[in-house]
Amino acid sequence: MFNFSYHNPVNIIFGKGTICQLAELLPKDGNIMLVYGGGSIKRNGVYDQVIKAAPGRRLIEFSGIEPNPRYETLMRAVEVVKREKINFLLAVGGGSVIDGVKFIAAAALWQGADPWDFMPDHGQAVRAALPLGVVLTLPATGSEMNPNSVVTRESTREKLFFGSPHVMPHFSILDPETTYTLPPRQTANGAIDAFVHVMEQYMTCPAGAPLQDRQAEAVLLTLIEAGPKALEHPNDYDTRASLMWAATQALNGLIGCGVPHDWTTHMIGHEITALYGLDHAVTLAIVLPAVWRHKRQHKAAKLLQYAARVWGIRDGDEDARINAAIEKTEKFFQSLGVATRLKDYDVKNGLGAIAQQCEKHGLPLGEHQDIWRKDVETIIDLCRE
Amino acid sequence: MFNFSYHNPVNIIFGKGTICQLAELLPKDGNIMLVYGGGSIKRNGVYDQVIKAAPGRRLIEFSGIEPNPRYETLMRAVEVVKREKINFLLAVGGGSVIDGVKFIAAAALWQGADPWDFMPDHGQAVRAALPLGVVLTLPATGSEMNPNSVVTRESTREKLFFGSPHVMPHFSILDPETTYTLPPRQTANGAIDAFVHVMEQYMTCPAGAPLQDRQAEAVLLTLIEAGPKALEHPNDYDTRASLMWAATQALNGLIGCGVPHDWTTHMIGHEITALYGLDHAVTLAIVLPAVWRHKRQHKAAKLLQYAARVWGIRDGDEDARINAAIEKTEKFFQSLGVATRLKDYDVKNGLGAIAQQCEKHGLPLGEHQDIWRKDVETIIDLCRE
Repeated sequence: MFNFSYHNPVNIIFGKGTICQLAELLPKDGNIMLVYGGGSIKRNGVYDQVIKAAPGRRLIEFSGIEPNPRYETLMRAVEVVKREKINFLLAVGGGSVIDGVKFIAAAALWQGADPWDFMPDHGQAVRAALPLGVVLTLPATGSEMNPNSVVTRESTREKLFFGSPHVMPHFSILDPETTYTLPPRQTANGAIDAFVHVMEQYMTCPAGAPLQDRQAEAVLLTLIEAGPKALEHPNDYDTRASLMWAATQALNGLIGCGVPHDWTTHMIGHEITALYGLDHAVTLAIVLPAVWRHKRQHKAAKLLQYAARVWGIRDGDEDARINAAIEKTEKFFQSLGVATRLKDYDVKNGLGAIAQQCEKHGLPLGEHQDIWRKDVETIIDLCRE
Repeated sequence: MFNFSYHNPVNIIFGKGTICQLAELLPKDGNIMLVYGGGSIKRNGVYDQVIKAAPGRRLIEFSGIEPNPRYETLMRAVEVVKREKINFLLAVGGGSVIDGVKFIAAAALWQGADPWDFMPDHGQAVRAALPLGVVLTLPATGSEMNPNSVVTRESTREKLFFGSPHVMPHFSILDPETTYTLPPRQTANGAIDAFVHVMEQYMTCPAGAPLQDRQAEAVLLTLIEAGPKALEHPNDYDTRASLMWAATQALNGLIGCGVPHDWTTHMIGHEITALYGLDHAVTLAIVLPAVWRHKRQHKAAKLLQYAARVWGIRDGDEDARINAAIEKTEKFFQSLGVATRLKDYDVKNGLGAIAQQCEKHGLPLGEHQDIWRKDVETIIDLCRE
């Protein structure tokens, strides 16, 4: 087991009818910016619950945060924050809204010329941020309980990541009932996103950390059970609650304690989204099996453990068991309505740009730091059809 | 799944050679009380590591915290805290030292007549406490990452519990190497204590929380693997690390989120320790199987799930599988060198006092709040031989 530190002070409020607790959680004084996306929270009643829970607060709204939140949009929000002297940010939505709010929170107090400079490959770190809280409506990214944010810059077609303890939410309210009305595509994407978050921290090589392995498998098994069930029974509370809590646990730091991480699938996936506009989760469902095929030798021990413990595959030789585990994983993504090859999305041309952008944003990748440009090209080849 | 809140801001520093990080973690100014137990930290080098990591700090030592820390001892520490104007407490040891320091931290700022009044059945809550940090040397109680403390009052033979977010450690350093020199009895007790902590939150009734179930099973499986292995190979780092992290995860609030709790075994166990002086973990190993036998109807669904997932018991009728699971559990305790009946400890007389004290400190017990005095008597009967 590697040395690690774990410090996650996010106050989680989980359950039915918990949005009303905003009344105690929001600061009593000052100006609060209520940030949301395309307006689904107005249709499903979440907006009304938030407003009702915040009487006497000065709320300034900023809506229109898009999926894969854009730097350009967020910088407009930063202007409003400065103009209106906002001192608390409330994100109401899914990972894109939360990630966007984290960027706004850090950018609002940024002392340098351009907040884009705190993106990791630009070399500067966030040193302060406005406090923020969350009402989660789409379980997927774990952003409600972690210090991470992914932002896309339209002008340069870059989708980049930053992380800072300064942007950890002060609190996150998770009411599973808010997810009853999610479109099936978003439910499916959320389950896949969470599943692949686990894999980035689990499907590496054995590291003498059996507890973390089993905690990861606990999340995988829950997602495999609850994902398809949520599509079938969208109003089943316990299923929605399991999916929501599993997505949080998939990326709140816990299962990644003391073990190697991969993140190749995410890094390649981000480039595909930036270049071709595919949903984030779709890119993960395409890239993950290809990464495993390319790295099956290095990942053999964990692939076999995964085959046995998660899918009950214990018969046959090692190759057959690994193949079966990869196939089961793809079938799981497909059972959620997500196809797992680039050809399914008519993405065929100019694929060389993916590896090129990966190189620009930082290679090598992988738990052994051995995935270079030619490996990314091989992986993309395996994603084709 | 029940509604829940989860807020655990303890900063965990885990791994080899991490005690030196005290240099950054301890407050730079003021007076720090270094609290420890019987002096094993002087023999195993931990004391020296702590002193070396705190140059320039004013450290006032208070040693002699006993297992099942005593109110009488702790109140002497409170006097020193007040006299020396201590503003930070550093606990170096296991659960008893940490629990003791939590009591000292709260008692030092207590405004009422007697700090014993913040024990739950005395009706008042802790409203403030001095900040505290931990260097853990004995994995068992989870106290390094929770708000709980158990203190024994010698004069009244009471062992009582209090919990408050004010006594959460600011940081806890967990270096598995500090546990290499633990006596086998303490290693065994620690594994059993952690195991039963999981059970108090897991072995109840199904509650639509499959993730929490699997997270609990992850800890159980790790303890079953690592416990005996640590006795056999006391200097195996990964084994010690797994045991240490599993004990923390067993009682840091996570696996108890949104599910019913029992705690009958602990409540009865505390009375046995208070009356007869048996080790805490020993009382748990005796009482747990008896509680299961008495409540096997109510706990049947979870006993069967436990049998299958933790022990691989899938054949035979339900009764046989439940019996086998209880037997496997007892065998596990015994494999750690801990006998599981009162007769093994020559505790035979005056057993009626146990149920009587349970009644005094609050009945009913159990996830259904249906364990009354006569049930405790039946359970004690099942503990005899």
